[in-house]
Amino acid sequence: MAPLPHDELWMKRALKLAARGVGRTAPNPPVGAVVVKDGRLLGEGFHPKAGAPHAEVFALAAAGPAARGATLYVTLEPCAHTGRTPPCTLAILQAGLSRVVYCVPDPNPVAAGGAAVLAAAGVEVTGGVLEPQGRELLAPFLCAIRLRRPWVELKMAGTLDGRAADRFGASRYITSEASLRRVHRMRDRADAVLVGGRTLALDDPQLTCRRVPGGRDPVRVIVDPMLHHARPEQRIFSTGTSRVILCVSDRLPLKARERLDGTPAVFLPLPGDAAGRIRPRDLLAALFGLELHHVLLEGGPGTAAAFLEDGVVDRVHFVYAPRLMLDRESLPVLASDRPRRMDEPFALSNLRVRHVGPDLWIEGEPMPTEDHPPVLER
Amino acid sequence: MAPLPHDELWMKRALKLAARGVGRTAPNPPVGAVVVKDGRLLGEGFHPKAGAPHAEVFALAAAGPAARGATLYVTLEPCAHTGRTPPCTLAILQAGLSRVVYCVPDPNPVAAGGAAVLAAAGVEVTGGVLEPQGRELLAPFLCAIRLRRPWVELKMAGTLDGRAADRFGASRYITSEASLRRVHRMRDRADAVLVGGRTLALDDPQLTCRRVPGGRDPVRVIVDPMLHHARPEQRIFSTGTSRVILCVSDRLPLKARERLDGTPAVFLPLPGDAAGRIRPRDLLAALFGLELHHVLLEGGPGTAAAFLEDGVVDRVHFVYAPRLMLDRESLPVLASDRPRRMDEPFALSNLRVRHVGPDLWIEGEPMPTEDHPPVLER
Repeated sequence: MAPLPHDELWMKRALKLAARGVGRTAPNPPVGAVVVKDGRLLGEGFHPKAGAPHAEVFALAAAGPAARGATLYVTLEPCAHTGRTPPCTLAILQAGLSRVVYCVPDPNPVAAGGAAVLAAAGVEVTGGVLEPQGRELLAPFLCAIRLRRPWVELKMAGTLDGRAADRFGASRYITSEASLRRVHRMRDRADAVLVGGRTLALDDPQLTCRRVPGGRDPVRVIVDPMLHHARPEQRIFSTGTSRVILCVSDRLPLKARERLDGTPAVFLPLPGDAAGRIRPRDLLAALFGLELHHVLLEGGPGTAAAFLEDGVVDRVHFVYAPRLMLDRESLPVLASDRPRRMDEPFALSNLRVRHVGPDLWIEGEPMPTEDHPPVLER
Repeated sequence: MAPLPHDELWMKRALKLAARGVGRTAPNPPVGAVVVKDGRLLGEGFHPKAGAPHAEVFALAAAGPAARGATLYVTLEPCAHTGRTPPCTLAILQAGLSRVVYCVPDPNPVAAGGAAVLAAAGVEVTGGVLEPQGRELLAPFLCAIRLRRPWVELKMAGTLDGRAADRFGASRYITSEASLRRVHRMRDRADAVLVGGRTLALDDPQLTCRRVPGGRDPVRVIVDPMLHHARPEQRIFSTGTSRVILCVSDRLPLKARERLDGTPAVFLPLPGDAAGRIRPRDLLAALFGLELHHVLLEGGPGTAAAFLEDGVVDRVHFVYAPRLMLDRESLPVLASDRPRRMDEPFALSNLRVRHVGPDLWIEGEPMPTEDHPPVLER
């Protein structure tokens, strides 16, 4: 059936609830649900983490017997399959709901078909309410289902003339405290944060979300194929509450790892080429295998450019401070070795800008190319 | 006296009229004036070019005898001095106006004092109405009076990662047709447009405002101290309706100019250092001497950086296309030879962004430093 006047209002509430689970639910999607009857909220819930009950179950439990004849708003089409938990369609039918409104259809072939099951059982079903907002929230999940790789956001901080560090390698802190806080909130919502070895050596970053009260550190991934840059005294090995994964080339001699004995780092050997490089796609396939579905890529210039050229960046964030580096020997925000001509542009679409403190925060999406199919169907 | 309710409305009209003279009036400021009685517009005018009557005179002539007892709105404090034309205060008193409202006080010590002259003669005088807008319009004039150099706007076009050209030097056209049109409108309003010799050689630009119907080409200035880049076959020497000035080092042998015999270029010899460079301040002093009060600096990367570091850029415009160059060997938008550390930033204030076609157009003002006093008193 068609949406009703208040459907968007309640779906907004369900989306807000879903957002509470972001960064905690992989390999499941974040989902929110509310139960409403006669314009009154009877119960609500969200999926807090994989293995825990789904959002619908929390919302129905909160509503109790009053749910009979009520409407359920849920951000993802209810599942019709038994995974770690029983199918939500069953719980919905048992609760006696008369209507179900969902936001995004379930793209997972294993779990899809919930709407049809409900409709066949006489429940009124409305889909697609606030679907664009829902797809935004579910971008990592939709990417994982469709492309079997994590959804990748690239964040680069720089000066307005596109420099990430001075010629001596110093980059802390180009951008403002307000932007740093925002980056930490992004980390809190990502499954993993990733930098190259050179950034590890130059910046000695912690890659935690310590500026977010109640935040959860993402898994920290370092790409240092030949272990040229990792040192046991770097802060990442003694701070934070999350795993540190060191991606190394499978050509790296085992003995080279000894230098990091005593650190809690976990080694992830990946196919490396003769130059000691790991292809971003291979790296992402491995992270996908570890159920990391949302990767925040934080550079540096070489690593970031490699991911872009491999067609595996889904969104870019350029955080530009209101200053100029000017110096021709300073480090550019992106630095690929591959020559590119003006007439073979790497294009971005849908640029958005906002002011964050004194900085400009520019977002966009790489345009789909042959190598880089679109992730989100809009 | 204090402003009255409709003062801003009529001053807006006067500012709009003044804008028609922008780019045509140097060394005079652009000025607009309207004569109003009982809420009715009796006459209006603007200063079209140096040597022509001032705005007040046009407005009073249009109003005729009806001006007696009316109010004059004028964007700059009426002058009290006889230059190429008689003082405006005299014309105002002769017309029998009862009130004068102006926007910006005249900063020119030679012409100032008009308000006091009028008040002493019994005319009601109100100053400072929409003064910030007036100062924006008069920025080149105020800069010329105060610093005895032209007001300099820097425009750089690039990719979002801060590159002005690919590694082969190609830069046409990074940005969109919409941005090009906007640049041409800026040229139409500037007294001069300036590029370095390398840009002349790489881009072969015309530097006209041919995309502006009814536009007036600015004087075109090339900085090519040792004439390494200028060639007679370049388009700038055969197109456009304005002068082409070639700034050369005073160390350049006269014989070297022969290569450009037959072109209409005018040579402007300036103090050059041993490396063949001309200091931006020296160059601007010479342009000021030629009554060019508003210079649009269009690069390239070395010339632009030199002007910024010399503290003589008053506003920057970064026009960024929604694409990435990535290539580490591509040309940065700004390229100074001077090392700069992260902790000695070249700061911009008051960043503004707008979307122009698909591009981002970012404006800001270099922060005042010891070397670079503020131009506009706000």
